[in-house]
Amino acid sequence: MFNKVCIIGLGLIGSSLARNIKAQNLAGHLVCVDLNPKVCEKGKALGIVDQATTSFSVGVEDADLIILCSPVGSMSVVASAIADCVKEGAIITDVGSVKGSVVRDLQEHLPEYVEIVPGHPIAGTEYSGPEAGFAELFRDRWVILTPLPETDLRAVDKVSALWSACGARIEIMDHKRHDLVLGITSHLPHLIAYSIVDTANDLQDDMKSEVIKFSASGFRGFTRIAASDPVMWRDVFLNNQEAVLEILGRFTEDLSALQKAIRKGDGDYLYGVFTRTREIRRKIVELGPEGLPSPDRTGKD
Amino acid sequence: MFNKVCIIGLGLIGSSLARNIKAQNLAGHLVCVDLNPKVCEKGKALGIVDQATTSFSVGVEDADLIILCSPVGSMSVVASAIADCVKEGAIITDVGSVKGSVVRDLQEHLPEYVEIVPGHPIAGTEYSGPEAGFAELFRDRWVILTPLPETDLRAVDKVSALWSACGARIEIMDHKRHDLVLGITSHLPHLIAYSIVDTANDLQDDMKSEVIKFSASGFRGFTRIAASDPVMWRDVFLNNQEAVLEILGRFTEDLSALQKAIRKGDGDYLYGVFTRTREIRRKIVELGPEGLPSPDRTGKD
Repeated sequence: MFNKVCIIGLGLIGSSLARNIKAQNLAGHLVCVDLNPKVCEKGKALGIVDQATTSFSVGVEDADLIILCSPVGSMSVVASAIADCVKEGAIITDVGSVKGSVVRDLQEHLPEYVEIVPGHPIAGTEYSGPEAGFAELFRDRWVILTPLPETDLRAVDKVSALWSACGARIEIMDHKRHDLVLGITSHLPHLIAYSIVDTANDLQDDMKSEVIKFSASGFRGFTRIAASDPVMWRDVFLNNQEAVLEILGRFTEDLSALQKAIRKGDGDYLYGVFTRTREIRRKIVELGPEGLPSPDRTGKD
Repeated sequence: MFNKVCIIGLGLIGSSLARNIKAQNLAGHLVCVDLNPKVCEKGKALGIVDQATTSFSVGVEDADLIILCSPVGSMSVVASAIADCVKEGAIITDVGSVKGSVVRDLQEHLPEYVEIVPGHPIAGTEYSGPEAGFAELFRDRWVILTPLPETDLRAVDKVSALWSACGARIEIMDHKRHDLVLGITSHLPHLIAYSIVDTANDLQDDMKSEVIKFSASGFRGFTRIAASDPVMWRDVFLNNQEAVLEILGRFTEDLSALQKAIRKGDGDYLYGVFTRTREIRRKIVELGPEGLPSPDRTGKD
């Protein structure tokens, strides 16, 4: 599929992609660039890359496809580091959870003779690092691509083909739209989960141990989300600031209304909200286990 | 274990208890009271009770154990309805998610010659009704009992034995403490989940369909919580008002601080919070799948 592929950043996503590319022979040569020499060693030891280097120029030289898998906040630095070494016509894609800032950073630094295909796989776990990756991570998951108006469609097709080979389904979307939709479905839920777990963290020790003990009553699910990679999520909020603040504003309005209803003892208002919210759940369950229409869906979770 | 057991309210919890009591022959006679005749018919058709009636007096007459499984908001009405029919020395327990208001309502209406053992199984699903119940619901789950200072310890032991037979583990706690701990681990997470799903529900139709489609990125877990029984949860918030408002106040303070950090671009603050929250997750994972120490725990979720 490609002569030489370069993955920059061998974390959960990067190493899962590497496993797919190696297992299916999608690249003549697969190299990873990671600034941490221990991660490079790990990548080689795991046998998921042909070559691992801490040098951007060595990694991206002659690569047909460069996949940026480093945190969203590093895109500007990485793009300027590789700008002079990328070959003409190379395809540059990424896996960042924010697309507007990535588009801005890549366009600012990369030469016009490369094809930029920003991307975002809706996949992840609470674990990080090259050992945490696995080939099935993208199976039946969505990958959203947000190509620019000037992007060559053949480049978009090639990136789509790579993700399809990983078992993913492709959606094409405008990057602004992506940042708003994911702001609601992903960034706000993570912010809230971090916040509620932090609230619990402030409790006195005896109370905290009881909260941990009885976490199964709802809190537990929040702690899983709030154990996600701190650097990745810091960068998400710093780089999708506008959409997150806008959605957070709507959320706090709705939460204040619920708070007022509790204080006033307005059971009808509470009942009304708690009934409406069931409808969205029904639609999600209808779509199957991963929000994908699937013939073998069970309707269970 | 008991001569006659009466379950009032044959929903998810009541019917799951009935299944255990029938399967293990824990009662000479098992009767359920439900004001909905269809639910009574369903209970008999499922074969999980010996008798089903819409009459409180028929149900509780001569019962050794009466288990109140109706919503927390109905406790006052139910207690006054059964007050004149309960036999001397009968044990009254419940399964409500709030304990302070239940203690108040039961003490106000019930005669002094019954033993009150308030209880709360930390178990549930997003489904409701007698068909949704299953015997394994309480296996390896905590049941918190909040007996009064004057409760006969033999009554507490009998209720504990019933729950142990269902596979649950027992914790004894003061009811005020219960309402605060569960306010954090359960009530606040539910309120937040309802709120965020309601925020999404306010979106325009095209945006809403995309939110549903890409829900796997975090939102999906919230929708499951927000599909919980609306009557039960309305009653929880109306009856644990004080603790919920107190905890909600702390949460909104912490969320405002995160909001401010995003607006100011304070990455260090965000990173600090996102790192601290991992510690609580680590402790929960150490406790095993259901927050219980277990020799065969896998550390996975």
